Amino acid sequence: MEKIESIHLVTDAFHCDFKHQLCLGHLGNDMLNAADVHSSRRHFGMRYLNTMHKTWVLSRLAIELEEMPHEHDAIIISTWVENAMKFFTKRNWEITSEDGKKVYGYGKSVWAMIDTQTREPQNILEVNEGSITNYINPEKVCPIKDVSRVRIPEVTSQGETEESFTVRYSDLDVNGHLNSVRYLDHVMDTFNIDYLKEHELKRIEVAYVAEGRWNETLHIRHMQEGDDTHLFRIVRKEDDGKEIELSRLSFTFR
Amino acid sequence: MEKIESIHLVTDAFHCDFKHQLCLGHLGNDMLNAADVHSSRRHFGMRYLNTMHKTWVLSRLAIELEEMPHEHDAIIISTWVENAMKFFTKRNWEITSEDGKKVYGYGKSVWAMIDTQTREPQNILEVNEGSITNYINPEKVCPIKDVSRVRIPEVTSQGETEESFTVRYSDLDVNGHLNSVRYLDHVMDTFNIDYLKEHELKRIEVAYVAEGRWNETLHIRHMQEGDDTHLFRIVRKEDDGKEIELSRLSFTFR
Repeated sequence: MEKIESIHLVTDAFHCDFKHQLCLGHLGNDMLNAADVHSSRRHFGMRYLNTMHKTWVLSRLAIELEEMPHEHDAIIISTWVENAMKFFTKRNWEITSEDGKKVYGYGKSVWAMIDTQTREPQNILEVNEGSITNYINPEKVCPIKDVSRVRIPEVTSQGETEESFTVRYSDLDVNGHLNSVRYLDHVMDTFNIDYLKEHELKRIEVAYVAEGRWNETLHIRHMQEGDDTHLFRIVRKEDDGKEIELSRLSFTFR
Repeated sequence: MEKIESIHLVTDAFHCDFKHQLCLGHLGNDMLNAADVHSSRRHFGMRYLNTMHKTWVLSRLAIELEEMPHEHDAIIISTWVENAMKFFTKRNWEITSEDGKKVYGYGKSVWAMIDTQTREPQNILEVNEGSITNYINPEKVCPIKDVSRVRIPEVTSQGETEESFTVRYSDLDVNGHLNSVRYLDHVMDTFNIDYLKEHELKRIEVAYVAEGRWNETLHIRHMQEGDDTHLFRIVRKEDDGKEIELSRLSFTFR
């Protein structure tokens, strides 16, 4: 079995936005689905882990784009594991045209494995006799900046706006929590359509901190830095007024 | 060129819900994408129509399911044109397992063609010298009840509930209007998770009346008939208090 899994896709019209470009949320799901195919075929996928009450949890995600795929573009999403440690594994992606000549972008991510009952971190290297280590591929280059913790200042000079949404059925993943990619959709939905008309996504980063649950109301705090950088904090407000952070995101446009 | 187009898919994990079944919204988009592939390859697709300021508009949709595909199921979505008249065309779908032995469900739909500037109906049979008529396939059976106008009583004995949502970026299709399938997501999102745990979708019907626009707030009126049938009216409230109906939906569970 190859260390790299390559998924061939056509950018479907009904996965595209009003600019006839692939929606960020659909790209994100395609990347996570490629990761699921890669890990499932190599016997460390979510479905296999579920049989022993374990699952993968996305901890950090970065996507950097030269260009977003357009309607009907034939693309390849390749994914591989760069490294696997006891409690974390690094997974990368490359998105190219079908002929490999054009690079649309790259992705980097960090994943943890948890027990679905205790929510405790699990030793990745012990699952299926450490089969993941047979597929580690540090040679393949992923030439974008590493994923970060997404540091967000308390407040920027341009101030802060807040919107909220309630976690519903279509937000949930197979584990019954708010799907990691739905954060991207909800954040994209805070932008004015005129801003999106004139700007192209360059890089997004997400640090996932806590899981979202069905029917809870979450708040998206949005701070802008200059014209191109947007920082987001997604929080749950507890009854005692305390705020629990679920994720921090940074979106940079060109 | 065959009259029927068949798309081979695997039910991806990140398109599945908390029951490990394909989300209705993803199934809907897959069906519309199959329709776009069918029509594009035969030179009457949306993208070709856009070059002459025309587009397809979905007018009625019915999906009937024996069973929703499960995570990692290999499926085939086949689609064909049953009939084409001056102002309407009928398109059907069949969803089967990869080996064709299991039928997951069927779909029926009615489409109109409009001018994207005047919004006026266009003569389908005049486009590309009526090329659509070369692909009409009335022989292939689609054994579900026809699409209907989705008649909804003013109010049922069980009363009515109302929720609302604002049309955002991720709701828009390539034509810049509320994507036909997003109605299904928003309606699914009105259900309590416990109800969805215990019920399986049997048939949905949608009658599309008017188009949704970015940033407008829409209201979902929900009426239940017995335990299994749910009727929805999605409306825009004008400043003068008048209501404009955008769509009517009926969801039947088993």
